Amino acid sequence: MSKKTAILLTPGPTPLPPEVLRAMGRPILHHRTKDFGELFEFVLREMRYVYRTANPVLLMTCSGTGAMESAVANLLSPGDRALVHSTGVFGDRFAAILRAYGIEPVVVSEEWGHAADPGRLEAALEAEPGVKAVFFQHTDTSTGVVNDVKALAEAVRRRGQAVTVVDSVSGLAAEPLETDAWGLDVVLTGSQKGLMCAPGLAFAAVSPRAWKLVDAARLPRFYFDWRTMRAALPRKETPYTPAITAVMGQAEALKLIRREGIEAVWKRTAGLADYARGRARALGLELFARDPANILTALRLPAGVDGDALIASILSEEGISIAGGQGRLKGKIVRVAHMGYIGRADLDAGFAALGRRLSAAQA
Amino acid sequence: MSKKTAILLTPGPTPLPPEVLRAMGRPILHHRTKDFGELFEFVLREMRYVYRTANPVLLMTCSGTGAMESAVANLLSPGDRALVHSTGVFGDRFAAILRAYGIEPVVVSEEWGHAADPGRLEAALEAEPGVKAVFFQHTDTSTGVVNDVKALAEAVRRRGQAVTVVDSVSGLAAEPLETDAWGLDVVLTGSQKGLMCAPGLAFAAVSPRAWKLVDAARLPRFYFDWRTMRAALPRKETPYTPAITAVMGQAEALKLIRREGIEAVWKRTAGLADYARGRARALGLELFARDPANILTALRLPAGVDGDALIASILSEEGISIAGGQGRLKGKIVRVAHMGYIGRADLDAGFAALGRRLSAAQA
Repeated sequence: MSKKTAILLTPGPTPLPPEVLRAMGRPILHHRTKDFGELFEFVLREMRYVYRTANPVLLMTCSGTGAMESAVANLLSPGDRALVHSTGVFGDRFAAILRAYGIEPVVVSEEWGHAADPGRLEAALEAEPGVKAVFFQHTDTSTGVVNDVKALAEAVRRRGQAVTVVDSVSGLAAEPLETDAWGLDVVLTGSQKGLMCAPGLAFAAVSPRAWKLVDAARLPRFYFDWRTMRAALPRKETPYTPAITAVMGQAEALKLIRREGIEAVWKRTAGLADYARGRARALGLELFARDPANILTALRLPAGVDGDALIASILSEEGISIAGGQGRLKGKIVRVAHMGYIGRADLDAGFAALGRRLSAAQA
Repeated sequence: MSKKTAILLTPGPTPLPPEVLRAMGRPILHHRTKDFGELFEFVLREMRYVYRTANPVLLMTCSGTGAMESAVANLLSPGDRALVHSTGVFGDRFAAILRAYGIEPVVVSEEWGHAADPGRLEAALEAEPGVKAVFFQHTDTSTGVVNDVKALAEAVRRRGQAVTVVDSVSGLAAEPLETDAWGLDVVLTGSQKGLMCAPGLAFAAVSPRAWKLVDAARLPRFYFDWRTMRAALPRKETPYTPAITAVMGQAEALKLIRREGIEAVWKRTAGLADYARGRARALGLELFARDPANILTALRLPAGVDGDALIASILSEEGISIAGGQGRLKGKIVRVAHMGYIGRADLDAGFAALGRRLSAAQA
């Protein structure tokens, strides 16, 4: 191991609160017991609070990508039409998953850094009336944008019967989201971002309209079969052995969110985003996103600065993990997260380090 | 939470060594860093030691069932023939996964409690010469049997070109297994049994012959796509965010296994199995398995004893988690594990409690 990592400013995993770390260091429970059943039920109930939904919430042991795949496999059948409104790496990933399952989606792509335009979505659905499911991101961590999920869901409803599938892996418990009030059919998330737990768990909130598709869908699914998960809910169980340690940690993180209140979490995250943008401006750095999210700030690097070398030096010299660019943005941007258990002091340290290493890189 | 669980004698999760718990309670690393890359590489190298293989080992974030599904999705194409030699719940699960992917397998079923008969496997392959992959268990935790994996693999080789897929989710790091010396093409395992870590990680060791199928296979796969995992290995990464905390714990557990030596682990487990069988005999209980495994002892309950109520009382009154029967054995057997971080003192406590609760149930 090289020098200790003091501070994580990465968009997943985010740092873990001490309460969560302590819970994960406790002796493990067996998952077919009353104690675990109570813990599992608590986690699902609190997840409904965070999701702002009365719909059933499913718990899966996988990354956010696994949750995205589960939505594709559970909602669609061979020959179905699907639409992806892509704003970056994660929208493109939805399209890649659909293609892996033999479904060539209609893809509406925005310029990276721009939010999804509800008018373009509506036009695309008008041109393609048979679409069964529309996939988009709440926030796309690759570009640091936030989408107007409410307006996108309204656009879908105006143009047919498609269900909306929202990837809120990085947005939930950080940016405002109203699953029921906005009529969102499927909302996916992961444990390691706003939810302040270790990676390994993913969740899906599934509406009654979506369940109809789940029951009719014919794409192959087994581990990710939502029907099996739903059938195990009355027993307070998952069908297969879950990441029990992560469930123990997630329960503690959800207690922290409940204590603060979900709206206060959103407000705090927005305040940190404002603060980060100010610190970035003071360094002369430009925001990458035209429609910036509150979960992280993506910053364009000055010409001639190698982003990958920069973040490597921030980690090795300063002990701070900052993310670089993904896909076509590799080496061109840095991404500073401010969701979950990240505070102003972490941002102070991160921007001070970023300033020093930028000066060194440009010297 | 009800009364504290003092002792786990369940076949996954098994109890966690303090070193593993401490590692999982440490601040989380980011997975796109040099430190994590070194940890990841260490885990894969030590897994090759445990597997007794020089083949690449893949790490997945899922349960053992996810690993089983990954083998199906990566090896086969629509229309392929597959054979399952089933010795219990987990063999039947392989068949169910294959059916979910549209492949109706040839199923050779043994009476529950009996090991897979290599002669029957050979005869089935002779009758069905086009089989591409043969699936069976190393140990089936549902019945407490161990298969003669070496003889089964030889039977497969005598009758064609099929690859062997061995589910060693509960067998690895507990019962002898020689991936390379026995010519096993795919060996699957999970982190939460002999590997003494929390559930959430699964592994696959994949032979060059199996990789040829992986590159040609046409069943849909994305999250479980072994090609993407292989492509990320040179970067010392997983394609998607792994269960980082579990990887940190797994590294510590693998250090313990290396210190003891894998052959010593097998020998210790065999000794504990002998001891458990003796304790069971002293209670007048009959082994369920005709071909008993070393990982756990499955015991038939006397007529009139409700197994589910018995294990519930052992947990609530004695603080000890023992497993009941699965599938058609529900309520009829109990299963006492002695793999991983379970010692003689744990078995003493478990059998004492089992004896008391059995007497109470029969009083």
